[in-house]
Amino acid sequence: MAKVLMKGCEAIGEAAIRAGCRNFFGYPITPQTEVPEYLAKRFPEVGGTFVQAESEVAAINMLYGGAGVGKRVLTTSSSPGISLMAEGVSYIAACHLPVVLVNIVRAGPGLGGILPAQSDYLQATKGHGHGDYKLVVLAPSSVQEAVDLIYEAFELADRYLTPVMVMGDGMIGQMMEPVEFPPMRDLDDLPAKPWAVTGARGRKPNVVNSLYLKEEECNANNWKLKEKYDEIEKKEKRWETYACRGKKLDVLVVAYGTMARICITAADELKRQDKTQIGVFRPITLWPYPYEALAEAAQSAKSVLVVEMSTGQMVEDVKLAVLGSRPIDFYGLTGGVVPSPDDVAERLRKIVS
Amino acid sequence: MAKVLMKGCEAIGEAAIRAGCRNFFGYPITPQTEVPEYLAKRFPEVGGTFVQAESEVAAINMLYGGAGVGKRVLTTSSSPGISLMAEGVSYIAACHLPVVLVNIVRAGPGLGGILPAQSDYLQATKGHGHGDYKLVVLAPSSVQEAVDLIYEAFELADRYLTPVMVMGDGMIGQMMEPVEFPPMRDLDDLPAKPWAVTGARGRKPNVVNSLYLKEEECNANNWKLKEKYDEIEKKEKRWETYACRGKKLDVLVVAYGTMARICITAADELKRQDKTQIGVFRPITLWPYPYEALAEAAQSAKSVLVVEMSTGQMVEDVKLAVLGSRPIDFYGLTGGVVPSPDDVAERLRKIVS
Amino acid sequence: MAKVLMKGCEAIGEAAIRAGCRNFFGYPITPQTEVPEYLAKRFPEVGGTFVQAESEVAAINMLYGGAGVGKRVLTTSSSPGISLMAEGVSYIAACHLPVVLVNIVRAGPGLGGILPAQSDYLQATKGHGHGDYKLVVLAPSSVQEAVDLIYEAFELADRYLTPVMVMGDGMIGQMMEPVEFPPMRDLDDLPAKPWAVTGARGRKPNVVNSLYLKEEECNANNWKLKEKYDEIEKKEKRWETYACRGKKLDVLVVAYGTMARICITAADELKRQDKTQIGVFRPITLWPYPYEALAEAAQSAKSVLVVEMSTGQMVEDVKLAVLGSRPIDFYGLTGGVVPSPDDVAERLRKIVS
Amino acid sequence: MAKVLMKGCEAIGEAAIRAGCRNFFGYPITPQTEVPEYLAKRFPEVGGTFVQAESEVAAINMLYGGAGVGKRVLTTSSSPGISLMAEGVSYIAACHLPVVLVNIVRAGPGLGGILPAQSDYLQATKGHGHGDYKLVVLAPSSVQEAVDLIYEAFELADRYLTPVMVMGDGMIGQMMEPVEFPPMRDLDDLPAKPWAVTGARGRKPNVVNSLYLKEEECNANNWKLKEKYDEIEKKEKRWETYACRGKKLDVLVVAYGTMARICITAADELKRQDKTQIGVFRPITLWPYPYEALAEAAQSAKSVLVVEMSTGQMVEDVKLAVLGSRPIDFYGLTGGVVPSPDDVAERLRKIVS
Repeated sequence: MAKVLMKGCEAIGEAAIRAGCRNFFGYPITPQTEVPEYLAKRFPEVGGTFVQAESEVAAINMLYGGAGVGKRVLTTSSSPGISLMAEGVSYIAACHLPVVLVNIVRAGPGLGGILPAQSDYLQATKGHGHGDYKLVVLAPSSVQEAVDLIYEAFELADRYLTPVMVMGDGMIGQMMEPVEFPPMRDLDDLPAKPWAVTGARGRKPNVVNSLYLKEEECNANNWKLKEKYDEIEKKEKRWETYACRGKKLDVLVVAYGTMARICITAADELKRQDKTQIGVFRPITLWPYPYEALAEAAQSAKSVLVVEMSTGQMVEDVKLAVLGSRPIDFYGLTGGVVPSPDDVAERLRKIVS
Repeated sequence: MAKVLMKGCEAIGEAAIRAGCRNFFGYPITPQTEVPEYLAKRFPEVGGTFVQAESEVAAINMLYGGAGVGKRVLTTSSSPGISLMAEGVSYIAACHLPVVLVNIVRAGPGLGGILPAQSDYLQATKGHGHGDYKLVVLAPSSVQEAVDLIYEAFELADRYLTPVMVMGDGMIGQMMEPVEFPPMRDLDDLPAKPWAVTGARGRKPNVVNSLYLKEEECNANNWKLKEKYDEIEKKEKRWETYACRGKKLDVLVVAYGTMARICITAADELKRQDKTQIGVFRPITLWPYPYEALAEAAQSAKSVLVVEMSTGQMVEDVKLAVLGSRPIDFYGLTGGVVPSPDDVAERLRKIVS
Repeated sequence: MAKVLMKGCEAIGEAAIRAGCRNFFGYPITPQTEVPEYLAKRFPEVGGTFVQAESEVAAINMLYGGAGVGKRVLTTSSSPGISLMAEGVSYIAACHLPVVLVNIVRAGPGLGGILPAQSDYLQATKGHGHGDYKLVVLAPSSVQEAVDLIYEAFELADRYLTPVMVMGDGMIGQMMEPVEFPPMRDLDDLPAKPWAVTGARGRKPNVVNSLYLKEEECNANNWKLKEKYDEIEKKEKRWETYACRGKKLDVLVVAYGTMARICITAADELKRQDKTQIGVFRPITLWPYPYEALAEAAQSAKSVLVVEMSTGQMVEDVKLAVLGSRPIDFYGLTGGVVPSPDDVAERLRKIVS
Repeated sequence: MAKVLMKGCEAIGEAAIRAGCRNFFGYPITPQTEVPEYLAKRFPEVGGTFVQAESEVAAINMLYGGAGVGKRVLTTSSSPGISLMAEGVSYIAACHLPVVLVNIVRAGPGLGGILPAQSDYLQATKGHGHGDYKLVVLAPSSVQEAVDLIYEAFELADRYLTPVMVMGDGMIGQMMEPVEFPPMRDLDDLPAKPWAVTGARGRKPNVVNSLYLKEEECNANNWKLKEKYDEIEKKEKRWETYACRGKKLDVLVVAYGTMARICITAADELKRQDKTQIGVFRPITLWPYPYEALAEAAQSAKSVLVVEMSTGQMVEDVKLAVLGSRPIDFYGLTGGVVPSPDDVAERLRKIVS
């Protein structure tokens, strides 16, 4: 398929369709309303079901139901809407169900603003709902990568039977870039889901459940979840490095999403103008976090700078990777203010000097 | 006041009244329904307002309103109910409003079970709602401490204008212990709230708001929040050590809540039977986490063991404190299965040998 | 107490307080938001509980609870909000609970407009919720009468253990008139409610319930309700006549609420200018409807004209009273357009000629 | 198509599909859960969309949306669920939108019981939502007629752009009878809906709206609705008579739904055993009510007996038809108790003697 120029939100919608998703449940919220808008138009054309629910609480419970009957299901929302889904996501994880969530992050907390931010990192990677569960979190830095990670999200969800989130900032959702779509998934060729609740004609009934009144059974389910998360941590870490190989770095910048692209521009600028060696480490999976790869990349750097559109949420993960072996600085702007390459370059110069 | 024998949930309710709270909004959920039950009876006697809302989403928004007009407000819930409050707590934090939440944690994720657990640690300390905000989290290990921390929670909330959570496991809520209540707070003596929305007769109107459509204003509010959190981190860390002073420890156990009491019993047993030196470090504030104090305590230990009723949620914070200087083991049971002193002792023996 | 000049909505709020009501549950909607606004301010002064619920559905269920524990409870709303309470009112009636509802009718159907109307007559008197129950409906035509009927509503509700609605149009709510309040009800002197669910210490538990899985019990409850309604129909019909006594009337106008006042002005005008005899019959209880009194009044008239701010909802009840013995005309304007005395006079002239 | 033996609820579901409906929104409630159950299975086979909403309030608003974009939409519920839809139905009527609702009536008020009843007659025909609107109400007395009236309901809804309700009692829903389905409606052949909100490419945007802030516009919409209702009253009244033609009747029984079948059996019994002439008049449209036809049928009878599974809700409409010219008796049982043919016969004997 040839490249087409598309807005991020619409490309995400199209990618979901091509990845075999025919069921969307959600509620509009800026800056991601273009995804449901796109799917509301496209789904009828491909025999899909689009439901605008009463609220985000209703939507996530519809995902719970849709996943339970074996469908590839999607919701997209933005920060406050994702918060409303915390209980539901915990239920879905507890039941080992595959769902895909997209969070086009806006500035928070509270209503905040409608401009881009990265301030839901901790919610996505550490907390959100209650109980011992984890969310796989994928962070694209371009529209093309958003498309690829949507495909990937559905595959990972089905492979590990777990909720997967694609987390982009408002820039990913709103900017237009050329994008090439992988081939359309054949619906008949999607992973079999023999555990799904599809009517038990001719077989033993399946059960989708998160309630375990016997503590031993609840304990067993939690360790079964833990094993799954251990396996994901072992196999599914993804990251990208820029200008890191075989070099002594003055500073290693750690950033994700579109922020990483801005940091690469800043790094190029410093190399050109100041002859300073700046590498960039970009985690693609925010959970599982590529601690080992980051630790290794940091070995060749004098210091580490974390850059985020937040007051510093990924810093903890960077500390856990570096474990005190390098000084760690942080640079961030929030509330929809996006650091420019010059802003980042300036901060890097300060560190180097 | 003399000591009285009380169930944890009821003592929490009585403590809230004595701390000057006259407004409760919540929704019943096991294992903390005894708190609303107690307050439903007690509040009319003291002129308080008790509202059982339509849902936890409604309840947290009533807290938002109640705090906004300057009242000391309380909700209590358990894990799934707390998840439903994620959006609301983010709004409350963004608006710099003081509220007190109690989470009597039950086994999760999902419906899980109704037995004690500590598996909401990451939700409470790292994530939950969206955006750059933090929740002060206090973890009592006895009914008396629950009472004291409820008082403390209301004072901290009012001092820093921020939501504060008292997080106990189901054991704290259900067990009976003798408890002494601090003196009743005089309602006329509570901190003044000149910012509250109380009708603007004779003064400029106050505004309680989390929406900032200008990114610079949103950014400014986020850094104002960050400064507050920095101050809390500096001033409000609390912890307790047991058998740690001036000793070389074979193992330092890190545990919080009732789990810490079980670990102390295990430590005593090992000292008596095996002549092994086991110290126990108990964080009382889970956020801000007492990293420095823990780092110091770990200096005198050969290794560290984290014990939780979860699959290991506090381990990350312990790693951030110890920063690779000591080996860290984890022992946990979940789903309502509570590790016994013998279970912990056995694990300690394994480590020592 | 001396007369004070008050807006209808505020007078209704004050009347509720004086009638012994200390519990309000509701949700704001134009044109009656001044009632909750007034009570939100006044209730704290008298130790009352004011709750703005999540929705009208939540509010009516809070009334259900409040009435069940023996309190005098109130909600006020306007047309769409009242529709949302249909299920709850049916539950309350089935449980023989006393509640008072105020409907300040706005133009419908749907969102309609926010201007005065009388187009909820059929909903209030015939349908609304499901099942064999009735709502006592009182229709004031002045602010003073609104005050008096609020008192009356609480007394009737408690006497018959049934929901009572005071239904006014937007004019009643918004206009200012001098009003005198009856003396404050002593809370200790309110009717005893030995059936209320107040904690069963020292007595057999009470039960408030509308579910009867045995059909004979459900049938029995329905006939018990029917007996109550028969008694109300026998004892509680209220109406007023104007210029009807001992006269041969050219036309008898039937109208309720503020519309009746407009019709009286029109009748006076016709008497003065045209020497035409026009009587006005004003039902005060819309259910039970004063069929017999209307039938009698119609005997002395050549014809009957029903005037409503609707497309003709009371006409059926007038037909049921007159039973074909007199011709019945209808004149109505809707959507917030209020017929003027001249409009009515013109229509009357047409009929007379 | 040959006759098949089907349960009423399932036949209703199948009829909706064949009538061209591909969109169902609802929430389960006994005794009609078999309809959504059936459609949940059948809709995917025919490319339809089945949504179990969060509540009946959500469901009716989804119907509002679905109708607004030009789809044939259905919900089915039972009494308390229908009450929750009162606000939404008023909006739908105000917007001139075609929807079909099925109410499989259960005993009320409140939770009542799950057994058959006819106690939502007044709600369906007179009240329910707010404002000047009417609901077309069709009352089948057999499974075959339920099927036929479902077709008819969709046609009437589209012809008059108005909500139409098919109201059956629990017996209609639960009993099995042989049924023949009319031919499947060709989806391409459904009535054009040029007013629907389908995206305005190449044409002026359509608007679906019930808010009229200018009172003259609101008034105009109400009289436009009234004209429509007048036309429906003129053209769409339906009824059936049994043993009424050319006879002097001792009693004319008026009954609808399955109750009418029981009354016919009773009439036959009396004819055979007592030589008494009993006619039965069965309204099929409850609104518009066939007043004139009933008045005519009553001419040949000495008296009229209304039989309902309620405490007497249709009696008023019978009075409006008969207008005092014949004595009217009522016989009813409620709460799920179904009068038997012998019960009715006994009551008829009492009247005759």
